[in-house]
Amino acid sequence: MKIHNFNAGPSILPKQVIRKSAQSVVDYNQCGLSLLEISHRSKDFLEIMEKTTDLVKRVMNLNEDYAILFLQGGATLQFSMVPYNLMKKEAAYLDTGIWAYNAIKEAEKFGKVRIPFSGRKKDYTYISKTYHVPDEVDYFHCTSNNTIVGTQIKKFPHTTIPIVCDMSSDIFSRKLNFCQFSLIYASAQKNVSSAGMTIVIVKKEILGKIKRNIPSYLDYNIHIKNNRILNTPNVFSIYTSMLTLEWIENKGGLSILEKENQKKAKLLYDEIDNNNLFENKIHKEDRSNMNVSFFLKKKNLEKEFNSMWKKENIVGLDGHRSLGGYRASIYNALPLESVQFLIEIMKDFEKKFS
Amino acid sequence: MKIHNFNAGPSILPKQVIRKSAQSVVDYNQCGLSLLEISHRSKDFLEIMEKTTDLVKRVMNLNEDYAILFLQGGATLQFSMVPYNLMKKEAAYLDTGIWAYNAIKEAEKFGKVRIPFSGRKKDYTYISKTYHVPDEVDYFHCTSNNTIVGTQIKKFPHTTIPIVCDMSSDIFSRKLNFCQFSLIYASAQKNVSSAGMTIVIVKKEILGKIKRNIPSYLDYNIHIKNNRILNTPNVFSIYTSMLTLEWIENKGGLSILEKENQKKAKLLYDEIDNNNLFENKIHKEDRSNMNVSFFLKKKNLEKEFNSMWKKENIVGLDGHRSLGGYRASIYNALPLESVQFLIEIMKDFEKKFS
Repeated sequence: MKIHNFNAGPSILPKQVIRKSAQSVVDYNQCGLSLLEISHRSKDFLEIMEKTTDLVKRVMNLNEDYAILFLQGGATLQFSMVPYNLMKKEAAYLDTGIWAYNAIKEAEKFGKVRIPFSGRKKDYTYISKTYHVPDEVDYFHCTSNNTIVGTQIKKFPHTTIPIVCDMSSDIFSRKLNFCQFSLIYASAQKNVSSAGMTIVIVKKEILGKIKRNIPSYLDYNIHIKNNRILNTPNVFSIYTSMLTLEWIENKGGLSILEKENQKKAKLLYDEIDNNNLFENKIHKEDRSNMNVSFFLKKKNLEKEFNSMWKKENIVGLDGHRSLGGYRASIYNALPLESVQFLIEIMKDFEKKFS
Repeated sequence: MKIHNFNAGPSILPKQVIRKSAQSVVDYNQCGLSLLEISHRSKDFLEIMEKTTDLVKRVMNLNEDYAILFLQGGATLQFSMVPYNLMKKEAAYLDTGIWAYNAIKEAEKFGKVRIPFSGRKKDYTYISKTYHVPDEVDYFHCTSNNTIVGTQIKKFPHTTIPIVCDMSSDIFSRKLNFCQFSLIYASAQKNVSSAGMTIVIVKKEILGKIKRNIPSYLDYNIHIKNNRILNTPNVFSIYTSMLTLEWIENKGGLSILEKENQKKAKLLYDEIDNNNLFENKIHKEDRSNMNVSFFLKKKNLEKEFNSMWKKENIVGLDGHRSLGGYRASIYNALPLESVQFLIEIMKDFEKKFS
C-alpha cells in the first residue's frame, strides 16, 4: 500500500533510512544486540555520534568553531535554554509565527524582549524585509520556517550581534551560509529523524558569558565539557539522524535538495494559484518550500475534497488545528510523485466542482 | 549468536519487545507508515499514550490522584525539574550514591538542601536505617537504587512530607506501595525502553504551590494541562515502553518479577560470597537486586578473568568507570540462564586460579 505522507511532523523519512533504522533495532551492525540495548558509552555509539557530527558539519559546511549537540526536550526546551545561556538583559525576537511567539514568551521569563517585527496581527502571512535589528541586545532570535502558516525567511539580516535560529522545520532543506548563525537548533522529527531529539549547533565563543546559575542539563557548556554524554542521549534518534545525513550526502548535499524542494513547492503553489477552487494566503516571496498551506475558496466543498484525497491514501493534509484548511508538508523525503499525485487530485476536484 | 547482556543502561530488553518495536519502525500496525512517520496528535499515537498510562497505573496500582508524564532529558533534567516545581525554601535529600549526589548539587541551585544521611565517606556501601526526615522541609528526595555501586533502599521512611524518588534503575522491578511516593521519576533506558524518555509519576495535589516563574518545558503542570503533548514526545520510546509494560503484565506483574529478580540476585551474590576469588563490598541488607558489583580479591588475575568472560559472549560486565571491578546489571529482561552462565564461568575461574 502506497501512502502519500504529508504529515507536518513527525513526518516522512527516506525509505532506506526507515529500513536500516528498523534493522538496527533488531540487531545493530550484526553485533548480536539491538541498538536499544547497547551502552551510550560503547565504542559503537561513540562512533555513531562522531559520524553524525562530521556529517552535520560537512553538509552545512561548518568549521571547528561550532559544537554539535544532540539534546532532548525539543525546540520547546531550547526556547528556555537559549535565554538561560545567552540573555544578560535583553534580546530581539522576530515574531513570525506561533512557535516564534512561544519562544518570545519563554525569553520574557529571563529579561526584556524587543520585537523588531511582528506578523501576528496579519495572521503571520508575510515577513517584513525592512525591520531593524538593534545593535545593543544580547542576541537576535528568528524562526527560519513557520510550519503552521507556511512562511519561510529567505534572507537573514546582517548584524554584528549573534543570530540564533530555530530551524526545526527546514533544517537540511536548503543551502545557506550557516556561519552567519551563532546558534541553530532543530527538533529532529520533521526533516531528520524520530521524535525526541534536538540538534543544537552552537558557536562555542558565545557561551560562558552569563553569571546566571544554570541547571546542568540546560547549560550548553556542561554538555560540551562532558563530551556530549552528560547523560544518556537519545541513541536511536541520533543513529537515525546519521542515516538521514548519509542519505543527504549521497544525494549530493543541500544544493541538490534545495532544487528538489523548490521544484516540488513551485508545482504545488502553481496549482493552488491556477486552480479556481483553492487559495494560498501567504505573500508570494515569503512562501515556505516546506509547508504549503491552502484553503478552499468555497468552504461548503470541504466534505467533497476531503473524501477525494482521503480515499486515495493521502495522509496528513489537514491544516494546523489553529488554522483549519489544508497544509501539505513537503519535506526532503517526500517524493515529487506525491506532490504530482496531490496535484492530480486537485485538478480532478476542480473539474468536478468548478 | 547468543549474547549475555549485563549492560547497566541502555540495557537488555525482552526479545519480543525488541521484535515488535522493530516491526513498528517498518510499518506501524499495518497502516503503511513507520511509527516514526506518524503524528503525535494522531489517534494511533494518542491510543499508545493512553494504553501506556493505563499500564503504568495498573502495574503500580496507582489511582487517579497521579498524572503519568513521558518527558525528555533523563533523570538529569528531573534533578532540576523537581526543585523548580517543588522547592519553596528547603528540601531533604538522601545521599546514597553519585546520582543522588548530583541531584543534591542541582537542588542547591534552588534552595537549601538538608542531608539526613550521606554514605559518601563510606563509598556508598551501605544505607543508614536510622536517619531522620525533617518535618518542615518541602519534600524528601531519595534514589531507590544506586546503579553504580549496587545498593538498593529496601524500606522507605514514614513521613508526612512528600517523598520524591528517582527509580531510574529499579522501576518495575519489585512490588512496593507506590502510593507512599508523591513523585517518582525514572529514565527509561534501563528496565523499560529505549533511551531518551523519562517516566514521571506525580501526585497532582503537590503541584502549583510555587510562585517561581518556571520555563514551560520544566513545569509539570503545563505538561498536564496540555494533555501531555505540550510538544512532540519521544513517540518511539513511549511505544516501546508500552510493549515492555504489556510483557510485565503478561508475566503476572511486579510480584512475579520481584521473585525472579530476587532469585537471580541471590544466586549471584551467593556465588560471589562463596567464591574464593571474588568479593562484594556492600552491606548485605542493602545489596541491590538490579546491579551486582563485585571485585577480584587478587587484582593481578584481572586479565585472566576478563579474557574468560569476554570470549564467552558476555558483555557489559565492566564496573562503572569511577569504581573499576565488575558489575552485573540483572534487570527484568535478563534471563536466569545468563546469571547461571556467568556463575559457571566464575566457578571455572575459581577452579583454575584459586
